[in-house]
Amino acid sequence: MKEDLIKIRNEIDEIDSKIVELYEARMKMSERVAKYKIENQKAVLDKEREKIKLQKVGDLTTSEYTRNCIIDLYKQIMSMSRERQYQLLTENGKIEKPNFTAVEELDFSNSKIVFQGVSGAYTELAMKEYFGENCDNFHVNTWKEAMEALKNNEADYAVFPYENSSAGIVAENFDLLVEYDNFIVGEQIIKIEHSLLGQKGAKIENIKKIFSHPQAFMQCQKFVDKHKSINKISMKNTAMAAKKIKEDNDITQAAIASKSSAKIYDLDIIQESIQDNKENYTKFIIVTNKKIYNKSAKKISVCFEAPHESGSLYHMLSHIIYNNLNMDMIQSRPIKEKNWKYRFFVNFEGNLEDAAVINALVALKQDAVSFRILGNY
Amino acid sequence: MKEDLIKIRNEIDEIDSKIVELYEARMKMSERVAKYKIENQKAVLDKEREKIKLQKVGDLTTSEYTRNCIIDLYKQIMSMSRERQYQLLTENGKIEKPNFTAVEELDFSNSKIVFQGVSGAYTELAMKEYFGENCDNFHVNTWKEAMEALKNNEADYAVFPYENSSAGIVAENFDLLVEYDNFIVGEQIIKIEHSLLGQKGAKIENIKKIFSHPQAFMQCQKFVDKHKSINKISMKNTAMAAKKIKEDNDITQAAIASKSSAKIYDLDIIQESIQDNKENYTKFIIVTNKKIYNKSAKKISVCFEAPHESGSLYHMLSHIIYNNLNMDMIQSRPIKEKNWKYRFFVNFEGNLEDAAVINALVALKQDAVSFRILGNY
Repeated sequence: MKEDLIKIRNEIDEIDSKIVELYEARMKMSERVAKYKIENQKAVLDKEREKIKLQKVGDLTTSEYTRNCIIDLYKQIMSMSRERQYQLLTENGKIEKPNFTAVEELDFSNSKIVFQGVSGAYTELAMKEYFGENCDNFHVNTWKEAMEALKNNEADYAVFPYENSSAGIVAENFDLLVEYDNFIVGEQIIKIEHSLLGQKGAKIENIKKIFSHPQAFMQCQKFVDKHKSINKISMKNTAMAAKKIKEDNDITQAAIASKSSAKIYDLDIIQESIQDNKENYTKFIIVTNKKIYNKSAKKISVCFEAPHESGSLYHMLSHIIYNNLNMDMIQSRPIKEKNWKYRFFVNFEGNLEDAAVINALVALKQDAVSFRILGNY
Repeated sequence: MKEDLIKIRNEIDEIDSKIVELYEARMKMSERVAKYKIENQKAVLDKEREKIKLQKVGDLTTSEYTRNCIIDLYKQIMSMSRERQYQLLTENGKIEKPNFTAVEELDFSNSKIVFQGVSGAYTELAMKEYFGENCDNFHVNTWKEAMEALKNNEADYAVFPYENSSAGIVAENFDLLVEYDNFIVGEQIIKIEHSLLGQKGAKIENIKKIFSHPQAFMQCQKFVDKHKSINKISMKNTAMAAKKIKEDNDITQAAIASKSSAKIYDLDIIQESIQDNKENYTKFIIVTNKKIYNKSAKKISVCFEAPHESGSLYHMLSHIIYNNLNMDMIQSRPIKEKNWKYRFFVNFEGNLEDAAVINALVALKQDAVSFRILGNY
């Protein structure tokens, strides 16, 4: 029996070496097609031709089961051929690069920065870390207003929380990136340490209500679970929560916020570092209304809507993977006007100058229902 | 030139007919391997053998580029062969199915249902829609408490909001599905119509504060933007917001909640249907602590952590795609203990009886750092 298996496997090996040989010959043909397309300025993706091809190879099979397999394999094979054709187009300088302007360095002199929140907000800390302690800044009430400030040239840059390492993405800001024609040019990671703040002399036993941001409550889940009887009330911002309890001047109220908020609003720290994860970080993005990127940028953010066919997301991701680009984030958000349809946000490593990046972007754009480069930073 | 293209395409067609022929021969060999494995009780997935095979076919190629392509194609080809082997094993009654118990129908008689919130909550509406108007139920303050109630057998089923068609997933409940050993057995979609509720005779001009759930604010973004000067205060639940303003009996306070909440808490409807999207739906899941599924179940939810290598998510998704399973959702959530690492939640069509599903699940489990079936419903 064991011999049988060895014999079968040898036969499979033989078949495989023939398949590999044929595949390479096919890829060579595909390169000739690319050459023809370059000379005749034809589009790489010919949807009609691909449809006919799938029908043809399907008809060559002898069972329904292998028919499905072959059709699937050929979707993959044709996607690979397209990728190769894009590479050749790039080498021939025939590919259209994304219309972003490369800059040697971002210029922050005379820049006005906007952030959402009040003094003491984590976003303010991120801003000062990125732009310097004395940067020229103002704050607004909502993230949308910060986007508007960019749109109306009232601010040059805006800072938004993007993702927390334990609570996840700030979904609203992902949606706002789609809504506005603004672009990410940088990111700043800040270590988040939440404290429970209260009136002077307040003790945990006094507290009946805690004010904070919903994400801060999520990041302090264990603390919250331990104090079930205390009412949790959500605020737009942790610093606003601190400000509110200062104004209310009520010994039964506390806020979950940063230590620096305690200082700014002259509150006592009832308990320090109450977040679940001692290594708790939030990533902030720096956004502008100019289509620019730093020449040394290393990360690309895109968003797209995949066609509504089975496997389409998977095939779109193949454009990133086959170009050897390292994808480090994928998120999905509902498309408001289309029930249960999603827009995907993907981050991968690379610079808009790289051939592999251009290949991936062209292919993604071709396949997508809608597609946008959100930034290179 | 045109003739050139036709000639190249004819050559490609010839190559393709050979590839299809070889593929079918390979699949026949694969069936003989299955027969051997059935007779000798060997596992279908032999990771070591597959690794060697990928190395071998890769070495047969003549360029780095085709090497990557071939390795990718063979991952797919081997996955297809495995699927065929699982089919044959299933036909021979030799397959190890996931240890869920199939039931003809879910039994709700004498069942106790738990939900988070208060009377009038959308979750209560979903519960009544699913279990009937007179189902035996109780409510708790937090989603975590509802999960605990299942764990401690205080409730047979719990209802949780899972995803809204415009505001997105309810992230906390995704995390709770991982934290607890409970399982999804059903879902219920409810049309969400938010209204602005106030005291008897209240008008929009009177309102200075609006209470509601953060997701409801997101779903009523346009309304919220239009009334910027009104303070927005987040509550755990829209019905709780209605209850609160009733108790406060303050003409300047309003709540965004369901019409039924207006009835329950004897409030006036200041403005009807204020959500952005007139087609606004929330999907609720029905969860139990028993590892069961309905024989007619059509959807599978899984969650997994992909290995931390480039392209690993893409390759894991291939197990779903190559098995022709229609993936209709993918979400990622941070893993709390691991900074910037994600756990993926994927829903696809299928039943735990299907060979294709079993094939996909076995392969996913093998590749994942951690893997769980969250339910079949």
